[in-house]
Amino acid sequence: MTNKSKSIYNRALNVLTGGVSRNTIFRKPHPLYVAKAKGSYIKDVDGIERIDFANNMASLIHGHSHPKIIQAVTEQLKKGTAYTMGSEIEVKYAELLNKRTIGFEKIRFMNSGTEAVMTMIKASRAYTGKTKIAKAEGTYHGTYDYAEISQTSNPSNWGDINCPNKVPVVEGTPDKVLEDVIVFPYNDINRTLEILNKYSEQIACVLIDLVPHRAGLIAAKDEYINAIYKWTRENNVVLAFDEVVTYRVDYSGAQQSYSVTPDLTALGKIIGGGFPIGALAGKSDIMKVLDPTESNLKHPHSGTFSANPISTTAGYTAMKIFDKHAVANLNRLTKVAIKQIEEAIKISDVTACVTGEGSMFRIHLKTTPPNNARDAYQNINVKKILDELLDYLFLKEHIIMINTCSCMFSTTLKQKEIDRLSQALLNGFRLLKPKLDKLE
Amino acid sequence: MTNKSKSIYNRALNVLTGGVSRNTIFRKPHPLYVAKAKGSYIKDVDGIERIDFANNMASLIHGHSHPKIIQAVTEQLKKGTAYTMGSEIEVKYAELLNKRTIGFEKIRFMNSGTEAVMTMIKASRAYTGKTKIAKAEGTYHGTYDYAEISQTSNPSNWGDINCPNKVPVVEGTPDKVLEDVIVFPYNDINRTLEILNKYSEQIACVLIDLVPHRAGLIAAKDEYINAIYKWTRENNVVLAFDEVVTYRVDYSGAQQSYSVTPDLTALGKIIGGGFPIGALAGKSDIMKVLDPTESNLKHPHSGTFSANPISTTAGYTAMKIFDKHAVANLNRLTKVAIKQIEEAIKISDVTACVTGEGSMFRIHLKTTPPNNARDAYQNINVKKILDELLDYLFLKEHIIMINTCSCMFSTTLKQKEIDRLSQALLNGFRLLKPKLDKLE
Repeated sequence: MTNKSKSIYNRALNVLTGGVSRNTIFRKPHPLYVAKAKGSYIKDVDGIERIDFANNMASLIHGHSHPKIIQAVTEQLKKGTAYTMGSEIEVKYAELLNKRTIGFEKIRFMNSGTEAVMTMIKASRAYTGKTKIAKAEGTYHGTYDYAEISQTSNPSNWGDINCPNKVPVVEGTPDKVLEDVIVFPYNDINRTLEILNKYSEQIACVLIDLVPHRAGLIAAKDEYINAIYKWTRENNVVLAFDEVVTYRVDYSGAQQSYSVTPDLTALGKIIGGGFPIGALAGKSDIMKVLDPTESNLKHPHSGTFSANPISTTAGYTAMKIFDKHAVANLNRLTKVAIKQIEEAIKISDVTACVTGEGSMFRIHLKTTPPNNARDAYQNINVKKILDELLDYLFLKEHIIMINTCSCMFSTTLKQKEIDRLSQALLNGFRLLKPKLDKLE
Repeated sequence: MTNKSKSIYNRALNVLTGGVSRNTIFRKPHPLYVAKAKGSYIKDVDGIERIDFANNMASLIHGHSHPKIIQAVTEQLKKGTAYTMGSEIEVKYAELLNKRTIGFEKIRFMNSGTEAVMTMIKASRAYTGKTKIAKAEGTYHGTYDYAEISQTSNPSNWGDINCPNKVPVVEGTPDKVLEDVIVFPYNDINRTLEILNKYSEQIACVLIDLVPHRAGLIAAKDEYINAIYKWTRENNVVLAFDEVVTYRVDYSGAQQSYSVTPDLTALGKIIGGGFPIGALAGKSDIMKVLDPTESNLKHPHSGTFSANPISTTAGYTAMKIFDKHAVANLNRLTKVAIKQIEEAIKISDVTACVTGEGSMFRIHLKTTPPNNARDAYQNINVKKILDELLDYLFLKEHIIMINTCSCMFSTTLKQKEIDRLSQALLNGFRLLKPKLDKLE
């Protein structure tokens, strides 16, 4: 049934390392390749159509090939895709985003979330004159060395919770990088402040994902963010939110639900309307470090494709459609989906729970929702069952989820697809119940 | 005449720091904004049409809105722009590029040149287990901290040529980053080897741009590259070429003219066909550090938009058209242009010379071509005249060049545009001759 995908992968093995250009798409025995995608549906090269609840790792807020985005991009294509000059759309789009979120006084576009977080960290250093960054254990912030420390730590190496070890993701990461990163346990006020206090004079920024997907997809507690905010004010430290994934959570991003305003926010994913993008937004006086009209330019920054008129046209169109009404509808539908899945968990009598915010949720094979990365950690036995569940959904039920057992919804989903999803999960839970029961 | 651009910029000042999202497009008193671009021509929002010799900082090998690229992208748009699954075009494109250049055994796509160089450095560390990188003074390699050290050093801070200072570009760059970077003078065998030898056991890779634009756009000498190659073989060091800009120089990149094969090559710019892209290519055994099928994956790497089917479709189409015949024609036309400009220099009797390779050249306001970054360095008086020349060309002659007084040609240029360019430069040289003469 997957002969065409297999034969493409066999060719891929000769030219791409491991046969893929992006580990996300890898699956055993081989990735499947897309023929065509439209709205909530993806058809692979062997003709099988699946419902897409992954939306390219949360980046497609309107599913695939939205007609208005296609139209806007098709128009722009005729006028060019990149110039060594400006285009009005970058200004229009900046106006739209800055109006959308209170803390966005100035913005700058780049090419990816990785670039946005890297620039956020560098700008924080340039602004404060300090070099260390502080981040939560288990959170993903792209592939800049400093940002990725302790993203994948596990019980064998994560150390004492009072002072988590700094665990690099990539072999050969300089030890000196580790010295400039401080790791704290997420959602734990006392331990976090105790750790931050030790380095208060050396920390440039505290990097926060308000609903960290990899660390459990649980929202930061309000009092936790308030405490960190207060600490950053007292210590001249930049409060830096990574909303690359979470900007979809509410009209003004996940930060809308919190009473504090961050100094800087990194963006990406949905703001590209399906095209490569990243952005850094925040307070004017900090963003000034990037301002080329300053006599002392602290952080020179360009980027060949930054703010290119295709990514900004697609992003502008997507975010214009993703208005308050669309956000509310999408979040309401997601709530319905979570409720139906929780019912499926009850009916099938498996040990599982659901966490999430806005249009995102994640299924955990445990009784109570995790509170941080250590809680959310899955041992190899749990991971194996989860992979079986995802395989079953993908191959038998034709449901695409993210490999953490998460969904990131798009506005093209309707009740029909939600019913398919919850029924498929019910079937999957029932199938795996014997194995799940043995776990305990 | 530029009222519309001025009014867009006034809006931009409220939302983008310094009014731009990319310093490259900034010009005094304000940037100009594009209405439409086609082939070699860009029309701004006030109706003025200019000939584009910058091609978005060397990234558009076929100028603007090439019909075949538009057609291919328009087709792909209807099938989707990004998925959490594979697409055949990433494999087809990998096959095309790997076939094109001998050293490309395996390849992986990413979103920008900056990401490609960052991944190249991280992969080199993962492969060798060593952490330092060595790079030439004055060369630009994107915005990853390690890669940008000493890119903008100047006589006040560059120090002894026998041991150039490590000068960060961004304020607040950790000192610990500087400790992990070794800087050597470009094209200087003895000094380079002497410096490298001091750290031979700690260096993961030697980063080389074969024709570094910012350092003078002069090609590395064959014996220089041979000496570095030999040194890397003797010391278990990765030879890493940054061909983000220079891949346009020849059918197989600038490396085609050298007798050595690098271990890794970073790509970007033209291989995106006008869309955001980056890539890392090289030897299978090194690329294996990125292979997700390895039991010990040394360098996990993904990227939301990496290998997206739009950038790969555009890139594939562009590189397919940029065949051996097209490369030869383009390089021949560039030679003609350089000859005509050298004649203009002679006729106007100004002190100037031209350096370059393939479809790129740069004009220097000095008698003899520079040999490295220090030679190529322009003091403030020279820079001022150069800026005047570029302003004159842009505003009066309607010629767009890169702000280093460089041109990066596209295949849409014809003899007619070359004549316009050399005539405009002749006019500019004559205009500025009195100021130039005073300099000496």
